[in-house]
Amino acid sequence: MSQELFDQIFHPATVAIVGASAKDPETGWIGRLVNFGYPGRIYPVNPKASEIAGLKCYPTVRDLPEPVDLAVFNIPARLTPKIMQDCVASGVKIVHIFTAGFSETGKEEARKLEARVAEIARASNIRVIGPNCMGVYYPAGGLTFRSTFAREAGTVSLVSQSGAGATRFVQLANDRHIYFSKVVSYGNALDLDAPDFLEYLAEDSETGIITCYIEGVRNGRRFMAAVKRCLQWKPVIIMKAGLTEGGAGAAASHTASLAGSALIWDAFFRQVGAIQVNSLEEMADAVMTLLRMKYVGGRRVGIVGRGGGIGVIATDACERAGLKVPPFLPETQKQLEAISPEAGITVRNPVESTREIAGAADFYYRGLRIVDGDPQVDFIITHIAADIYGGRRQDMQTELLKAAEALAVTVPTLTKPLVVVLYAGEHLETFSATLQARDLLLKAGIAVYSSIETAARAVAIFQGARDTEKTH
Amino acid sequence: MSQELFDQIFHPATVAIVGASAKDPETGWIGRLVNFGYPGRIYPVNPKASEIAGLKCYPTVRDLPEPVDLAVFNIPARLTPKIMQDCVASGVKIVHIFTAGFSETGKEEARKLEARVAEIARASNIRVIGPNCMGVYYPAGGLTFRSTFAREAGTVSLVSQSGAGATRFVQLANDRHIYFSKVVSYGNALDLDAPDFLEYLAEDSETGIITCYIEGVRNGRRFMAAVKRCLQWKPVIIMKAGLTEGGAGAAASHTASLAGSALIWDAFFRQVGAIQVNSLEEMADAVMTLLRMKYVGGRRVGIVGRGGGIGVIATDACERAGLKVPPFLPETQKQLEAISPEAGITVRNPVESTREIAGAADFYYRGLRIVDGDPQVDFIITHIAADIYGGRRQDMQTELLKAAEALAVTVPTLTKPLVVVLYAGEHLETFSATLQARDLLLKAGIAVYSSIETAARAVAIFQGARDTEKTH
Repeated sequence: MSQELFDQIFHPATVAIVGASAKDPETGWIGRLVNFGYPGRIYPVNPKASEIAGLKCYPTVRDLPEPVDLAVFNIPARLTPKIMQDCVASGVKIVHIFTAGFSETGKEEARKLEARVAEIARASNIRVIGPNCMGVYYPAGGLTFRSTFAREAGTVSLVSQSGAGATRFVQLANDRHIYFSKVVSYGNALDLDAPDFLEYLAEDSETGIITCYIEGVRNGRRFMAAVKRCLQWKPVIIMKAGLTEGGAGAAASHTASLAGSALIWDAFFRQVGAIQVNSLEEMADAVMTLLRMKYVGGRRVGIVGRGGGIGVIATDACERAGLKVPPFLPETQKQLEAISPEAGITVRNPVESTREIAGAADFYYRGLRIVDGDPQVDFIITHIAADIYGGRRQDMQTELLKAAEALAVTVPTLTKPLVVVLYAGEHLETFSATLQARDLLLKAGIAVYSSIETAARAVAIFQGARDTEKTH
Repeated sequence: MSQELFDQIFHPATVAIVGASAKDPETGWIGRLVNFGYPGRIYPVNPKASEIAGLKCYPTVRDLPEPVDLAVFNIPARLTPKIMQDCVASGVKIVHIFTAGFSETGKEEARKLEARVAEIARASNIRVIGPNCMGVYYPAGGLTFRSTFAREAGTVSLVSQSGAGATRFVQLANDRHIYFSKVVSYGNALDLDAPDFLEYLAEDSETGIITCYIEGVRNGRRFMAAVKRCLQWKPVIIMKAGLTEGGAGAAASHTASLAGSALIWDAFFRQVGAIQVNSLEEMADAVMTLLRMKYVGGRRVGIVGRGGGIGVIATDACERAGLKVPPFLPETQKQLEAISPEAGITVRNPVESTREIAGAADFYYRGLRIVDGDPQVDFIITHIAADIYGGRRQDMQTELLKAAEALAVTVPTLTKPLVVVLYAGEHLETFSATLQARDLLLKAGIAVYSSIETAARAVAIFQGARDTEKTH
């Protein structure tokens, strides 16, 4: 793949929206580009309109005033071959077919239609993204397929076979202050496929972490080689969907993918060393770990948080994820006991900060340093239970922010990594208070997760990947 | 255990709060009882106050004007034996020791203190709940250990070794419109233990479902017998914490429990047929299933919701949980295709309702009946992705409620059970909109879960339990 091709995909100087909607220019493809600050020239194409969103509209692609870098097809599937031929005639370089209704329907007719489009592309110089996909989100270049995505650019890239999956993942990530370099939803991949994008991202200087949602691959060897190439420079996190029998069937009718057996994919992950995740939430949490935990010295975790059953549950969750929760040294326990304002506090590991949120900040200032000093642990998980501290609603929000501030101040002074779990429960007040505290912690550069289970898995995934790497 | 004992525990005519707080009568034990509508007589005991919350305060238990049914100890651990003796002298029937700092500390001195209290209890007729526990929540009788708990009474009971665990669980349940008959947090159990409460609940006419958070048991055979007795009349859902090595250690320092090996507990669940869950959220979801799914004819599920990758992920989640997602009959697929307003929609199973939330209600009115009619499926999961529909925020909330209304109207007309997944993402707007839709659906009697993974597990747990029962 030439660098030039991808320069055009991510930095098109001109974009034509074929089938631009006259009804809804604000939320359609054109409105999104305009509002997102796309700096190039936009050409609406629609025989039924003369102007859309203040832009001159052209009846066909052949009527465009210049050969465009990128044409987005928002048209009925059956019209695609004809418009493709218009694109050939007009000198279009990249076509993104948003339209669905191709091979994923499982219908012979639709499969033939897709083959016909592929033929036209091959016979010309046009490269195709799709069909049946959302295309590109590249905030640095003002490209998006969703108006709600962050305009802020980051270093994470995503190669996704699914558009809805990409949408959910980007939003989960954005809500975690994770921002993107390049996102591609590529659908049925009649031309450009996951390996093409992965090979490009492997060497892309704007990409630090590669994430991937895959339903199936056409050429397993090529896919593996592309992932390996990425792994030479940057971590790769892959969610392989369609690993169950029913899921494989669903993948076939979604993106016409051959999902492959769970056995083959197990072998793939074992051999290649990419990080495997089982959900989009887990993928967002894994990115959180990679971006915000400077290092993990080992699997031994010191747990600080609400005690009692919540501490027991936290410990189980960590050990189930493959972490270890060893007892602190007797000196550590003694020191923790000395600073605790409450009788009967648990100090063995997990250590109970305080029973009410009011004292948590004070405990963090002193207690975290004590845990940090214990040679038995490699890193710390602090968990805050807004749901249980929610008894005095007004105070809770204030005290939760105080606790978050104490963490933001203390974490940089520690010698070991510390991650935070903010558990919100399912109540609007606690959820809203938790989002504020999360914001504060994320701005302070701290990794934050929404439950002890997800935190433990996210940190352990990281560890697991490192261990796998070591065996190579 | 006598019925009389439990009558006094759940319907005390008189309660003494020993160590009542003069500073904070509103949110303390007395304030909670008063605000919660406890109908009996309340006696504050505190040598340093003459009146608390408008109630006459007594210097010691010996000074009380009558022998009370229940005395709650909110005092330093070391004072417990002395106050116990006062209770013996005064004719107190039940003591609830809230105070921590006993055998769970692992200290010899504290262990002896606990043994001393147990001796005094045994030598008298006083029965003890605790120490190191929250005691009773019984909304029908105006008893609570948390002001935020629902006043509404229901048919679910909980026996919990942990107070924080009980608090989290009750709140998760309340937020799901699940209400309680009787909740007991019993801590170190120096006298009354899980089997005592379970035996009582087995025959309690106000209890329809028994839930249980256990860290360890003293007498495994007795515990098993009690659970079996419950299972003769009602379902039992158990979360066994401390199943990992670290978790077992944490349980020991929380409630001085011998956690027992994972192997023993595996055998327990296999033999007894109680429903095992791995988190409090899972326990709340399992209760949701038991309360709101009338029956489950089998494991074959028809999935209706946002399609694409989200549909593939939903299918994987269901099959991973042990459900089956078979393709619909060709006739069903044809009918679904006929009513879909969009091209290229997936109809194989999962079926894609609509790409935008706006059309979802319309699709439900017609599409759910078609799926309901397919003999290939036993029940339906409808999943709504507020996060992905969140693009047009104002509309989204309205349309989400419309979709929920369509479900509320349609579900009663179906021949098969239907459960709903409302996925909120992690954004305040979508979370808040989702809570409203959830409220509407819960009021309509429909089971609602927050993710496809939790829904699939909750339904499959139920199925699994039934299968286990059949082999007996």
